[in-house]
Amino acid sequence: MRIIFIGFGTVGQGLAELLLEKKSILLKEYGLDFTTIGISDTLKGSIFNPEGIDLRKALDTVKKEAPLSEGAGEKYPGDALAMIQEANADVMLEATYTDIKTAEPATSHIKKAIERGMHVVTTNKGPVALYYNELNSLAKNKGVQFLFEGTVMSGTPVLNLLRETLAASTIQEIKGILNGTTNYILTRMEEGLSYEEALKKAQEFGYAEAMPDADVLGWDALAKVTILAKVIFGAKGKPFDYPCEGITGISSSAIADAKSRGKRFKLIGKIWKEGNLVKASVEPAEIDLSHPLAGVMGATNAITITTDTLGEVTIVGSGAGKRETGYSMLVDLIKIGGQK
Amino acid sequence: MRIIFIGFGTVGQGLAELLLEKKSILLKEYGLDFTTIGISDTLKGSIFNPEGIDLRKALDTVKKEAPLSEGAGEKYPGDALAMIQEANADVMLEATYTDIKTAEPATSHIKKAIERGMHVVTTNKGPVALYYNELNSLAKNKGVQFLFEGTVMSGTPVLNLLRETLAASTIQEIKGILNGTTNYILTRMEEGLSYEEALKKAQEFGYAEAMPDADVLGWDALAKVTILAKVIFGAKGKPFDYPCEGITGISSSAIADAKSRGKRFKLIGKIWKEGNLVKASVEPAEIDLSHPLAGVMGATNAITITTDTLGEVTIVGSGAGKRETGYSMLVDLIKIGGQK
Repeated sequence: MRIIFIGFGTVGQGLAELLLEKKSILLKEYGLDFTTIGISDTLKGSIFNPEGIDLRKALDTVKKEAPLSEGAGEKYPGDALAMIQEANADVMLEATYTDIKTAEPATSHIKKAIERGMHVVTTNKGPVALYYNELNSLAKNKGVQFLFEGTVMSGTPVLNLLRETLAASTIQEIKGILNGTTNYILTRMEEGLSYEEALKKAQEFGYAEAMPDADVLGWDALAKVTILAKVIFGAKGKPFDYPCEGITGISSSAIADAKSRGKRFKLIGKIWKEGNLVKASVEPAEIDLSHPLAGVMGATNAITITTDTLGEVTIVGSGAGKRETGYSMLVDLIKIGGQK
Repeated sequence: MRIIFIGFGTVGQGLAELLLEKKSILLKEYGLDFTTIGISDTLKGSIFNPEGIDLRKALDTVKKEAPLSEGAGEKYPGDALAMIQEANADVMLEATYTDIKTAEPATSHIKKAIERGMHVVTTNKGPVALYYNELNSLAKNKGVQFLFEGTVMSGTPVLNLLRETLAASTIQEIKGILNGTTNYILTRMEEGLSYEEALKKAQEFGYAEAMPDADVLGWDALAKVTILAKVIFGAKGKPFDYPCEGITGISSSAIADAKSRGKRFKLIGKIWKEGNLVKASVEPAEIDLSHPLAGVMGATNAITITTDTLGEVTIVGSGAGKRETGYSMLVDLIKIGGQK
């Protein structure tokens, strides 16, 4: 299976490491052998070789903060779209940065790859939150797969759980803690820190960015809610069609007050149906301490799925991380080409 | 797909209801159409008809506490083994009672069905905990499937999660709350009841049996631990090869003391590897309140899977129930015959 990496940041590197580490198990258990023929990255430069690129060398080169072409192959002069156009790849791995407002340049990469007949695996929330329906139709028409397990809870297999292991169930509601940064901040506030102190801790540990808006205002959770609304409930809405409130309005005293009543504040993303209408929201909610979501502390994520067959099923796991998100792409690759 | 029910108690009836309720979705989404040709039950009697049995009538008849042959079809004179021998079925559904010491009569039913070339779906812990390796080999030799999703956490898709959505991961440890009755008792004891009072409540709500030994001494959890040890880690042990301690030695004061230290007692079943050796145990453990398993209250079950790719993934859900356990058999049936 011939693959190209568009975007070779943390996630792309996480996948590359797993492809090397799991090489023999992938061949033995799934009949899968990967050849990387191109890597395109705006910061690390681009290399292309139809005969195959040595991923170990590529990883070693970026580790030294050198451009890819200085150690891992010949420099490719074109941009990502040119590489997608030129490469004779089976799968395009899209792991550029997420822009939740325009979903670019990822959406253009994905469209071009699908039009060229490639399967697409992405961890980029933008294209799925904004253009899932269009991209999915395009992929169906071209007979290729468009997979994005990593967009909701990183490698924790939420979409696979919803789409496969809950076969023939009706999903009635999905609600969850979809942003680790805000959950970490709320956890520290319950321990006594102020919002500002907790945010500072989150920034120190690398959970929150210097500009924390996308997390604390709920936008990241909103993108994931929109993805679930589209993929699981067939909704057509875009992220800001749904009400969205972050955690900036929650005070330490409100958290303490909730606790005294056996409740805990969580930033909850929720998707449900009213008749044929798909509803969704992101907002702080007081969760009963006896509910599995209440026990999810720190930077962990979790989703509770309400079904007509099993009642509530909750899955708790990491919602971020180099290896975890890289793994989501590996699982999608196995789905595309793996034989059992 | 022609099926026979061996055992038509709560679980078999739960599945029958789902087969009727989901008839159109099963046909439309999975190309599956089921014909029940036989039902054998030691209490409700047996009926057999190669042309097909009306499941609605069968359910209505047992609801009236009448024998199956008085309302749903012609009485079948033979026992379960005779029906398995005679029926030209594609799948045998084994849902008789669990005997964790002998695994009979279920194991004989399963062997006979596999030898006749039928796929087997069961929710019976006995045969899997005691004879998984033998039955699985037999099924492989005959080219049929032997599935048992419902044996660990009822319909909550633990085995499917472990075997499919965590593809290419190495499972390092599995630990969980595998018995709802004991978790309910511990929850009530934390609220202030004595062990005896909590057990009585559990019996009133139907969580615990009059003879609660299998639950409170940990045997039920031990059977599930043994299944996971065999299926996921390739162990050869039988249930009582592993150390097993129940909850009868936990006092209310020990629970309160743990709580004061930020801990909570749970009955934990655990499977892990030491070198090439598979270890397993069932015993009460103090779980840190920040761990997802600590927040699992009441009769709910949960499993935390530690992997080399994702760290810890926890799934929380029902571990019992007519509809939930029936659903586990439906998912296994879809796996056997469903087309997507």
